[in-house]
Formats: sequence, C-alpha cells, structure tokens
Amino acid sequence: MSAFAPLQADDVAIATIRTLSVDVVGKANSGHPGAPMGMAPVTHVLFSRFLNANPKNSKWFNRDRFVLSNGCALQYVTLHLLGYQLSMDDLKAFRQLDSKTPGHPEAGHTDGIEVTTGPLGQGFGNGVGLAIAQAHLAAVYNKDGFDLINNFTYVFCGDGCLMEGVASEAASLAGHLQLGNLIVIYDDNHISIDGDTNVAFTENVEQRFSSYGWQVLHVDDGDNDLKGMYNAIAEARQEKSKPTIIRLRTTIGYGSKQQGTHGVHGAPLKADDIEALKSRFGFAPDQKFHVPQETYDLYADFGKRGAALEAEWNSLLAAYGQKYPKEHAELTRRISGKLPEGWEKNLPVYTPADAAQASRKLSEIVLTSIIPSLPDLIGGSADLTGSNLTKVKGSVDFQPPSTGLGTYAGTYIRYGVREHGMAAIANGLAAYGAVVPFVATFLNFVSYASGAVRLSALSGHQVIWVATHDSIGLGEDGPTHQPVETGIALRATPNLAFWRPADGNETSAAYYVALESKKTPSVLSLSRQNLPNLEGSSLQKAARGGYVLHEEDNEDLTIVSSGSEVSIAVEAAAKLKAQGIKTRIVSLPCWLVFDQQDEEYRLSVLRSGAPILSLEASSTAGWQKYSHEQFGLPAWGASGPYQKVYEKFGITGSNIAVVGKKVVDFYKPRGKVESPLVKAFHL
Amino acid sequence: MSAFAPLQADDVAIATIRTLSVDVVGKANSGHPGAPMGMAPVTHVLFSRFLNANPKNSKWFNRDRFVLSNGCALQYVTLHLLGYQLSMDDLKAFRQLDSKTPGHPEAGHTDGIEVTTGPLGQGFGNGVGLAIAQAHLAAVYNKDGFDLINNFTYVFCGDGCLMEGVASEAASLAGHLQLGNLIVIYDDNHISIDGDTNVAFTENVEQRFSSYGWQVLHVDDGDNDLKGMYNAIAEARQEKSKPTIIRLRTTIGYGSKQQGTHGVHGAPLKADDIEALKSRFGFAPDQKFHVPQETYDLYADFGKRGAALEAEWNSLLAAYGQKYPKEHAELTRRISGKLPEGWEKNLPVYTPADAAQASRKLSEIVLTSIIPSLPDLIGGSADLTGSNLTKVKGSVDFQPPSTGLGTYAGTYIRYGVREHGMAAIANGLAAYGAVVPFVATFLNFVSYASGAVRLSALSGHQVIWVATHDSIGLGEDGPTHQPVETGIALRATPNLAFWRPADGNETSAAYYVALESKKTPSVLSLSRQNLPNLEGSSLQKAARGGYVLHEEDNEDLTIVSSGSEVSIAVEAAAKLKAQGIKTRIVSLPCWLVFDQQDEEYRLSVLRSGAPILSLEASSTAGWQKYSHEQFGLPAWGASGPYQKVYEKFGITGSNIAVVGKKVVDFYKPRGKVESPLVKAFHL
Repeated sequence: MSAFAPLQADDVAIATIRTLSVDVVGKANSGHPGAPMGMAPVTHVLFSRFLNANPKNSKWFNRDRFVLSNGCALQYVTLHLLGYQLSMDDLKAFRQLDSKTPGHPEAGHTDGIEVTTGPLGQGFGNGVGLAIAQAHLAAVYNKDGFDLINNFTYVFCGDGCLMEGVASEAASLAGHLQLGNLIVIYDDNHISIDGDTNVAFTENVEQRFSSYGWQVLHVDDGDNDLKGMYNAIAEARQEKSKPTIIRLRTTIGYGSKQQGTHGVHGAPLKADDIEALKSRFGFAPDQKFHVPQETYDLYADFGKRGAALEAEWNSLLAAYGQKYPKEHAELTRRISGKLPEGWEKNLPVYTPADAAQASRKLSEIVLTSIIPSLPDLIGGSADLTGSNLTKVKGSVDFQPPSTGLGTYAGTYIRYGVREHGMAAIANGLAAYGAVVPFVATFLNFVSYASGAVRLSALSGHQVIWVATHDSIGLGEDGPTHQPVETGIALRATPNLAFWRPADGNETSAAYYVALESKKTPSVLSLSRQNLPNLEGSSLQKAARGGYVLHEEDNEDLTIVSSGSEVSIAVEAAAKLKAQGIKTRIVSLPCWLVFDQQDEEYRLSVLRSGAPILSLEASSTAGWQKYSHEQFGLPAWGASGPYQKVYEKFGITGSNIAVVGKKVVDFYKPRGKVESPLVKAFHL
Repeated sequence: MSAFAPLQADDVAIATIRTLSVDVVGKANSGHPGAPMGMAPVTHVLFSRFLNANPKNSKWFNRDRFVLSNGCALQYVTLHLLGYQLSMDDLKAFRQLDSKTPGHPEAGHTDGIEVTTGPLGQGFGNGVGLAIAQAHLAAVYNKDGFDLINNFTYVFCGDGCLMEGVASEAASLAGHLQLGNLIVIYDDNHISIDGDTNVAFTENVEQRFSSYGWQVLHVDDGDNDLKGMYNAIAEARQEKSKPTIIRLRTTIGYGSKQQGTHGVHGAPLKADDIEALKSRFGFAPDQKFHVPQETYDLYADFGKRGAALEAEWNSLLAAYGQKYPKEHAELTRRISGKLPEGWEKNLPVYTPADAAQASRKLSEIVLTSIIPSLPDLIGGSADLTGSNLTKVKGSVDFQPPSTGLGTYAGTYIRYGVREHGMAAIANGLAAYGAVVPFVATFLNFVSYASGAVRLSALSGHQVIWVATHDSIGLGEDGPTHQPVETGIALRATPNLAFWRPADGNETSAAYYVALESKKTPSVLSLSRQNLPNLEGSSLQKAARGGYVLHEEDNEDLTIVSSGSEVSIAVEAAAKLKAQGIKTRIVSLPCWLVFDQQDEEYRLSVLRSGAPILSLEASSTAGWQKYSHEQFGLPAWGASGPYQKVYEKFGITGSNIAVVGKKVVDFYKPRGKVESPLVKAFHL
C-alpha cells in the first residue's frame, strides 16, 4: 500500500457528505444527522482509497462488504455519490412511505445495502458473519495464482453497538477465529442518546478488544487527520491473523453549532445552524442537496476503479474455470443461489415400520444424508453440539489452522454459548451469499437471539435453526428450559417458517422447504424424545405446511396438532373411535407454509362440519386461528421425567380422548360447525 | 479479616459436597455432576468462612446474597447442609415432578434460592442487580453507627455465563458503577458442553474484566488451595470501589475417572466411577447420600453464626428505629413489600376534555405524580431516556459519587444500550426486595431481553417495563423498529401482564395494577403519537384488563381493540352509526388481567349476539381468542410519517368502518353469533 496522497477534492467531498446528510435528515425532519457529519471523513477515506466495489453491479461477488452498524442516512448519501441505483430524488424521499430510503437501511430493499441495520449491535455481528464467509470460501476455492475470494469486510459502529451484548459475543468469537479480513471502525464520539457516554460506558474499549485477540489501533483526530485514518486502515489490512478495530475519535455533528453534544444525535439541525454550517464548509448557505460536480466526478472515478476490478476478477474467474472446471462449476452454482440438481433425492423417507426416533435425531440423519452433496451448508451450535446433534460424522471444524482444531475450509462452526451473536453472524453469512448457514440451540434459547431472528425474516436471510428440546418433552431441565411462548412468537414473525415436524417424513419436509426457500429463515422445532413414524405422513404432504394425516368421512371431530403431540392425537383418536366418535387428524407442521396454500386446499384440510380441537404442549395462543377449541399448557412446564410431565398436564392419549368427547358433546347441539378459516375478509 | 485457619473438618465437608452432588445427580439419572465436584472447595470456603445468612430465616434482609449463575445441584446440596428447608428426601427427589428440587434452581419455589438460574448469563446479571440494590439502600438508609445494609453479593459462574452477551453487558455496567460489594467467582474449568473451551472461548477473561474496571484476582489451584481461595475472597471484600472477579482454575468433575473432560459436564457418573470416587475421598463406596455427622455439625455452626448475626442486626435495626423513626418506618415498609397507604390517589385521571397526549407522555405524568411518594421505584432506560420519558424532573442519577454525575442514593439508572443486561439486573433488583425496578426501551427492543423477561415472569419478579414507540405509530424509524410479533410473544408468556393503554385513564390503570401486583412483571406498551382521552374510559374499568368503552343495545358489531387503535375504532363506530350499524367498543388493554376476571364479567364484555372484530396495529396472532374477525398488519410495518403508515395499512376510521360493514354483512345470514369466550372446556 502506497502512502496517502491528499487530493484537493477530498475536503470538498467530505464537506458534501456532511452537508448532504444534513439536508437529507432536514427534509425528512427525522433522522440522525450527527453520526454522518462526524463519520464523513473516514467514510470518504475508506470509499475513495480502499473500498473495492462496483456501483454498477452491487452484487459483484468479491466486492468488499461495507456495514454501517449504526445504520443511518450516511449510507444512502454515499451510495448516491458512488452511482448506485439511488437518485437525488430517492435521497429527498428519505424516511417517506415506500421510498428506497427507509429510516434504517434494509437489505434487499435498496441497491448496495448488504445487511439491515439500525437495531444496535446487529451490523457488528453481521460483519463477523461476512468475514467468516469470506475466509471459508477463500479456503475452499482459492488456488495458487487464483486469489478469487479475498475481499475485506468493513464495519462502522458506534458506542451503542459496542454496548450491546450481541456485539460482545460476536467480537469474542471473531478474535478466536482470527478473522484477518475484518476491519471495524469505531466512531468514538462520546455521545449516545442519553448524553455523554460517561454516564454509562466508561470501559476501556481498546483493552477489551485486545482481550478478545483483536489488533487495536486508534486515530485521535477523526475530524481532520485523513492521513492517520488512511494509515490505520492500511495497517489493518496488513494484519492477516487478527481482526482489527480502529478507535476513531470524532466529533459528532462536526460543523454544527451543537457539535459534540447529543443535541445533534437524533434530531434534525435548525435552519440557521444548517446555513452557518454550509458557509463554514464553503457551500452556499441557502442551497440544498448540492453536490459539486467535482465530487460527483471524483466518486465516478472510484466507481470506475471498482468496475475495472470486477472486469479483472471476471477474467480471473474464467481462467479459473479453465484450470479448475469442477470447482468453478460448484462456486458459480453456489454464487447463483441454486442448490445442486436433485439434492432433495438424498432426503430420507420413512414408513411406520421404522423405529421411533427423536426429531433431533431425525434432523441429524437428514444433515448426514444431504451434507455430502451440499457444501453450501455451514453451521454449528451454541455449545450444544451433542444435544442438538448438528455435527455430522467427518465434518471438520471451521477454525484457524494455527489452533490445530480445524481449518477455514471446515464447515462446522463452534459458536460458544453465544446465541444472539450466532444469529447475527448467520445473517452475515447468508448475506455474503454462496453459503446456507444453519445454527442450533435449544428452542427456548432462540429467544436470546430474538433481535437477530426478526432481522433474518425482515431481510430475507435464509438461516436455518435447529432448535431442539422444543417442549416439556425435554423433561428434567424444567421450566427454565421449556419453551411456552417461543412458538407463537416465531409464528407471529412475518416471513419466518416455524416448523414443528411430527416424524421422519415431516422432518425431511421441513428441511426440503427450508432449503428451497432462499428468502425465508426457518426454525425447526425438534424433540428430545422419541416420536413414532406416523401412518399417513409423507414428505410431499408435509411440505404443504399442513395436511390430513388421518381421514374419516362425516367426522365428529378433527384434532389439529404439531410435532411431538401428533402421535398423542392419533392415540386419542383410536380411543375415541372405540367409543364410536370419528376423529380426523390434521398435522400442521408449519403455519406460514400452510397459509400460502390455496384456499380450497386449506378448507379441505380444516374443513367445516365438525369441531376442530388443537393440541400442542405449549401456550395455546394463536391456535384459535385454526381450531374451535384449544388444548395446551395452562402456564409453565415442570421439571421431571418427561412422561410424568406430559401426564401432569393431561397431554396423553387417554386425557385428550376425554377432552375430545367433551368437545363433541358441546358442539353437537350447535349443529354444523363452520371452519375457522371461513372469514369475512382476508388481510 | 484474620488469616485462614484450616480445620480438619474442611476436607470432609468438601468431600461430602462432592459425593452428595454425585449421588443427587446419579439418582435423578439427569443433571450436571462436574461443576459441583469442581466448585465444592470454594463453595465450602465461602459458606464456612464468609457467607452471612441465617438458614432458619432465608429472608433476613441484610443476608449476603448468593447466586449460582451456572445453576445446578450444588446449590441444593449446600442449602441442605446448612439447614434450609430442604431435606435429604428433597435431594433424593432432584429433578422429579413437583419436588422442591427442580432441574434448575427457581426463586420463590425453594427456600434459600435468591434468583432463578440455569439459562446462562442470567445469574451474573441478577448479581449486578442485587449489588445495585444493596448500594442504593445503603446510601439511602445507612447512618453513622448504623451500617444497616452492607451485605455482599457472591456470584458463581462458569465459562458459559461469561460467553453470554447478557453477562458482558451487566459486567460493563457493574464496572462503571464501581459496585464494591459484588464478588464473582469464575469457575475456569476449561470445559463446556462442546468440550475444551479452546474450541470457541480463547479470550483473555482477566484482561476483559480489567477493561470493564473490575478488580481481577485469580487462584491457580481451585481444587486444593483453600488458603488461596480464602485470601482471594478476603481481598475482594476489601476493595470497596470496584467489583471483583476471581478466576478460579478448577478441575471439572474432580475425583472422577473422567475429571477434566466434558464427559462429567452434563451426564451422571457411572456406578464404578462413583464407587472409586467415594473410596478416594474416604467414604464407603456403596453408601449413598451419606453426610458425616461432623459435616452436619460444622454446617450447623455456620447456621448459628448466621442466626447470631441476624439477631445482632435486628437489635441494630431497633436502635435505628429509636433514632431515625421516619427512615425506619419507610425501610421496614419497603422490606415488607407494601406500598405506602393511599399511594394510588396520586394517579392522574382524565376526561375527554383533556388534551390528546402520547401514552409515553402520560406515563411520564404518572411517574412524575407517584415518584415523590414512592421511593421504592428505581428505574432507568437503555439509553433512550428522552424518548421513553422515564426521568422525572429532580430525580438524581444512581452513580458512583466519584463521577460527579449522581450518588448511590439516586434512583435513576443509566443502563446504556444494554437491554438484556438491564432486564437481568432488574430481576436482581426485584429479588433483593425493598425496591420496585422499572426499565425502559422501545417495545421492539424488549425482544433483545426476552431471555430475562421470561425469567421475571417465571420467578415472579415485579419488574415494570416502560416500552414506548410501540407500533407503526413510531413512523419514520421504519420496520426495523416497529414491533409486529412482540405483543403476542409477551401476551403468551405466563404471569406477564402486557398492557397497551388507550388513553390517560388506562395508563394510570396500567401503573396501578402493575404496582399492586407484587409477583407479576408488567410491560407497558406505549405510543409515540398522541392519543385522545376517550369518552367512557376510567381507571377502575381499565384495571379489570378489559371493559365496554362504548355500549349499544342490540349491537350489530363489537370492535375490540387496544392502545392507539381504540380511538380509531371509536371513529369507525361513529361512521358505522351514520349507516345505521350499531357498534359497541371494547377496550382490552391487558389480556392477563382480563382473563383473571370472573366469567360472567368477561362474557358481559365480549358478549354473544353479534360478531366481534379485533383491531390492532400488529400481528393479529392471538386475537382470535377474543374475536371472530381480526384486522391488523399483514406483515411488517413501513417507514414514513405515521399517519401515512396507518393509511397504507388501512388502519383508519374510514377503512375500519368499511371492514366492519363487511363483517356485519358476512355474519347476518349466519344468525346469532356466540361469544368466542364460550368454550367446551377451560385449561
């Protein structure tokens, strides 16, 4: 890396970023002007001197990834200057309905946005995931003379991000993993919403990151010292066996009358302040949304540099294809997001003659069957590998080679007890592309990661959760570990497929749909206890989200259930049959997917005629959508051998038969019962 | 503190803790033997030489608090030896249904358990809360010669706890707050479920805690060096302006053939291993659940020491009462958990003539009205003070006096951007007693803290959440900040009161019930935008969780709603009235409290006769319990001025009138409609 050569145009560009950010926030009359004003210099240094990206193709695979963890208007301004698909009119529509520039950057919504940020700490975790993906794919596909995948991941973050536990978790793991291509620039501006960070955040951040095994650098004058910033980033890029954090001391709202105070954090500047600021930077005080032509020209040059780099890379990839046709085919397939033709043929199918197994074990069997032909899968557990059953035989740990515990080509990630960090990292992995991340913990502890899980769904990141020990069926660990509210929380999250398979075929179906859904995260809720393979189940039927497991003509009752309780419903139906009560069984492993089926099908599954009773070892909340009556847990679970816990709560074939009879008797005088799916309107 | 004087009985006691733990786990055939075996020595040193507690009165107020963050059988064994209400039969019933010894320790369930642990990291956060409560009450009530409140908080934790972000957040804040009476003993045994911690946890823990401002000590031989442990704890107690962490290197499963491996972490030892272990420690290999009389005698002595300390303290408290009758009365009232007589008279009430206000503002008015007479309230925000409106005028920050930013007598806690840590700390505050903690963030970010929130509910900790910006009504910040699934997640959590007040009277009602419910946490879901004060609302009616806001005879439709959408329902009803459609309005601010009302009342509110339509700017999940038809968000919210966002999703008086008409027309041919509350059975 050569020395920093300042251009006259640098100062103009920086002033442009500052003033444009102020105008964008000012017109919206909403947003955060302070951080863009303070971070303008380093943004300019990074984008002008280092960042390899092609604004005309924001999906170029080996681009450097940029994450603005303290998500704000800064990113939109930069994308516009660089020539991404974001016009000045888009900037003027900041925070307006249906614009390309919503309040916080959303992946998949705006050209050039890698990950969704705003909720603090998430972007930091995403950055670690992006860096893991780069290290992994480099180890798998790079060859001598073919340094195909070598991009950097740059993350900007603020004090707020560093206070969040999700970032601490991700940072500790990133240090362990020695992710040399990860560079975080920490905007140390001493201001958060409550004022000076002295009120709550007085830790020594540099020492903390040293303890994690990071390279720690700092620049004392982040407002003016462009050369210092340049040198720090250059130094960070040289360090190949540690991630780097650069603590950059800036002045929030630099140039405003209120600079350095929390007055500039989350509210637009006043009109007179804006005018004075523009004058100070040599702009016409009354001119809004002004970009000097020389700044556009300068940024067009950066864009051209990126386009040239992409062209070069495309040639390299073509040459790679000549020399390594097999790897080339696989890599390009993975980049395209397509799974290998026929991968699903490896999914196991079962008959009722097959032995009962825990669905966590069935999940392991699926992983064991599909992983050999799906190198895309990169996953791991939050320190529950032996319980989640996520590490298939022969898989290698993703580890720095120096540890002797694995290699970067390994596909099994040891996340440690860091659920939230794991989930944010998985979002980064998915955002990078060419990998399909899976993560694992007990279902109950998915809630530790809720903040990141909702962002998987909002951003359309294909992350697959192996969430075992999914009910009171975990037994002895007790109510601290038994989910009650977790299922409905996940089912109520838009674009999140919560699967609770009842047996082997349904487990295969869950994986089938989860892997084919490239824009939807899935949580597979799996049992600790053994489940019989059911008469009437099939992969194809279960893949519709819900189906009739056991049919009866002119039924007296339908029981709709999921997961480990379906076989209990089957038992209850047999007992009811002996009493002359005809009971259909509907298995509903995934609400989201069932809701996507056509109305005719749905009404054929949950049909009018007889009452429908739901059964699940969980809160009954939400089941009213699919049933007239609901059986479940009245409150928390309990600690004890799992069969006894099921008995305590009446979730047994015998008791459900009693309940079913009560339901039939109750509805008999009421005449024909209408399906709960028959509605006056649909949203 | 005098020097360590070893007793012959020490070794026997330690061996007893080890072997008893093994037997407890062995009989249950489930649990974690390794940590108790490794932590037995330090447990013995702590309980024999330092811990001030009276086993005959586990509620003595100035007792030292002990938290086993890596919750396991160790705590039950110790409580039994000390003479708490936990018999040998209780130990033998470990992890059995309805025993006093569930899989993980539960506060309020077992005598002597301070906080619920097991979910990792939580106990660490609770410990910080316990220490804050001590520091605060000491600052408020201690006087010269009356060192009434001076207990220590001891926390044991393992690698898993220290990997969790919730612990990182709490640790950083504890360092900032200089909590000298907090002592954490970190069981550095190098083993977690995935095996050696080298696979994922290689940070320098000592350096990390130094960076947080903690005193850091270590003991290299935690298996044998009793003197070293004694000296470290003694040194920790001397440091008054920093919390201390003692890194204690132990051998997990010490004494087992598998010691030092993850084989002893989470599964019972084999029979031959148990026998060899007992022989090694001088116990009869075939004798189970054996406690030598000398160990019982020794522990009885510790118990007597504690009883004597309590008696001494009671005398001191009585003398304090003579000299400081006012403070004495207030402190003893607070310890008893009673609120001051008539406190509720300060709650504001409103009429429709009062100006529209945001319910976050109404919340601020409540806090401003009640805080002067409720010193019990100690609260703060996760760096959103100006948005949550939680700091009332004149309140002082809870800060170390050396910062010059407040005092320990202050009641306003600056939590920083640390939602999960804040929630775990609040559980510790509530567990300490004599304080009622409130915490604040945006509703959307309560989900960052889900892991701790469910433990508030399970443990019966009275924690009050001020959760503002509770819907698409926050507008510009967009879908990353707009909760959709959060409400139903909280409503489905047992023993958690999720309040969504519609106006001033309902906000007062929410605070009234939340403060009177000593064993239930509450989340107050509050608007950013202004809400009119409604005709028909009252504190008394809203305090029942749901009520008829607007009555009509022989209605054609009932709209049931909550929070900011109730006034929209009122608008819609007026429009429907103009078309001759009579519409009742039910406001349902709190499902939990409404469900606790008698059936007659509930059926009078959501009565049979006409269809019921629910309306909320959120996922409709769960509303099927109270309504026939549901209107809400089809998926995520959107970024834009809030009125436009409401319009986009059809949540306006005009559109809801159209929807209401559709509902009426749909149900008309169907005849009389039965209330959704009429059910075949109740759980």
